[in-house]
Amino acid sequence: MLPILETSGLKVERDFFLVHSPERVDPGNKRYTTRNTCKVVGGVGPNSLEVGVIFYKQTVEEVIPVSSAKAAELVKVFENTFRAVNIALVNELALLCDRMGLNVWEVLEAAFTKPFGIMPFWPGPGVGGHCIPVDPHYLEWKAKELNFNTHFIALAGEINRKMPEFVRDKAYRILNKLGIVPSRAKVLILGVAYKRDIDDYRESPAIEVIRLLRADGVQVSYHDPYVPSFRTPDLEMESQPLTEDLLRSHDLVIITTDHSCIDYAWVVANAKHVFDTRNATKDVRENREKITLL
Amino acid sequence: MLPILETSGLKVERDFFLVHSPERVDPGNKRYTTRNTCKVVGGVGPNSLEVGVIFYKQTVEEVIPVSSAKAAELVKVFENTFRAVNIALVNELALLCDRMGLNVWEVLEAAFTKPFGIMPFWPGPGVGGHCIPVDPHYLEWKAKELNFNTHFIALAGEINRKMPEFVRDKAYRILNKLGIVPSRAKVLILGVAYKRDIDDYRESPAIEVIRLLRADGVQVSYHDPYVPSFRTPDLEMESQPLTEDLLRSHDLVIITTDHSCIDYAWVVANAKHVFDTRNATKDVRENREKITLL
Repeated sequence: MLPILETSGLKVERDFFLVHSPERVDPGNKRYTTRNTCKVVGGVGPNSLEVGVIFYKQTVEEVIPVSSAKAAELVKVFENTFRAVNIALVNELALLCDRMGLNVWEVLEAAFTKPFGIMPFWPGPGVGGHCIPVDPHYLEWKAKELNFNTHFIALAGEINRKMPEFVRDKAYRILNKLGIVPSRAKVLILGVAYKRDIDDYRESPAIEVIRLLRADGVQVSYHDPYVPSFRTPDLEMESQPLTEDLLRSHDLVIITTDHSCIDYAWVVANAKHVFDTRNATKDVRENREKITLL
Repeated sequence: MLPILETSGLKVERDFFLVHSPERVDPGNKRYTTRNTCKVVGGVGPNSLEVGVIFYKQTVEEVIPVSSAKAAELVKVFENTFRAVNIALVNELALLCDRMGLNVWEVLEAAFTKPFGIMPFWPGPGVGGHCIPVDPHYLEWKAKELNFNTHFIALAGEINRKMPEFVRDKAYRILNKLGIVPSRAKVLILGVAYKRDIDDYRESPAIEVIRLLRADGVQVSYHDPYVPSFRTPDLEMESQPLTEDLLRSHDLVIITTDHSCIDYAWVVANAKHVFDTRNATKDVRENREKITLL
């Protein structure tokens, strides 16, 4: 932005000040809000940094100054990359467990009992929202200008973007066991928000799953208590009321978002079969023969 | 092991029992020892599992049963893979920061102030020990039998194994600035243990750095308070006493292990130049112009 701002004739560090302070919002997080999440600030010069720190200290409890706006930008991208990579890592483990006939959720739950050196991440139908699937790739592009390939960002993106296809393919294997050809199947997608208990469906992998299924002629409906309807350039859908009839009238229910307000035992009891990509049915004890996990 | 044990004529689950319970040791960790680190156990059948759980409960506070020996093995490999991947991720960031002229330690310290969704890992000259550089590749091999490529394991191994070469190349750039040709340089390696405050040098990246430097004719000595001498198939060396004379008589000191008993301010004061691959000199305030960070 500096060259654009300097066309005004004003001089940075004297007439105006320029800082970068990246967003650190975790949608739905009740413990950490803007006020108590410490904020990284980097200026294009020392005066800008000083002004930026004073500005943010008015509203944010703790401000972390870094030596440049570039460093501050890299902090944000690294934070998102860390999550993209770790989600992709457990997604790749899910693909491997599928191949090996092991339960990825059991393996991860056991691994996360280790009291040091590990942090829980869970597989799913992909990643969504406006940070994790997007921001790391800005850095990928910038690094390429310097003849540097950010291999981890590329690999994480590749695996996470592949997950909706894996969900489709596994859904077809389930339908095959049930003796139903996909083009005559009715599938109910449970949850289109990109994560639990929020209403944001930007870049949501559930919508990509819908797109893939519809391309093969599958009849797809969805229910999401947080998203009454959604619209993308190629798709416009309305949430269906979640009733016993709705569940019974579909050949397969795919849980793509694990909203906590849904009674999953009741869903499983009334559905013909459930493909659970989030382990939302973890505590469901009855009818487990009707559940297939990611 | 099951086929080998069954050649005895004994029957598993009746005459003998077979479980897998992976190691979870963090060398040097004083808080978590064998007793209070919960232990994952998987049996080849339910009787084996029961026997295994009873066995381990005698000495370990908490035992986590999983459904199979295979699942237990995958838990261990995933735990090591998680670390290998996250170390490789920050190592790749270090390579990128070197290219971009940014300080990777500053970027990471700022990122790790985020109070959720992140976990600290630090770059360095590579990975060592008998778990992280080794175990994930067992899974890589096993997965290949199933026509599955574990991309993250491959990439993590590639980047971590490349780090000693990066240390060499950056050391030569430093020597170049000092006007010294590597083949006439004397380099002191500080620390050959694979991590802080332990005496284990198996797979240590410091030894790989020594190997690479010697291959180019560099005169290399080392000091490590925990490793008085070491021997590998191609190398046999003795630790030199850490004196002012030793520091002064070398053109470059490379800190490859950040043992906490060493006075790094004193090292920097007496060395001609220090290449710090561990940010061990973080709290050194004076003579910073003599320090180059990874």
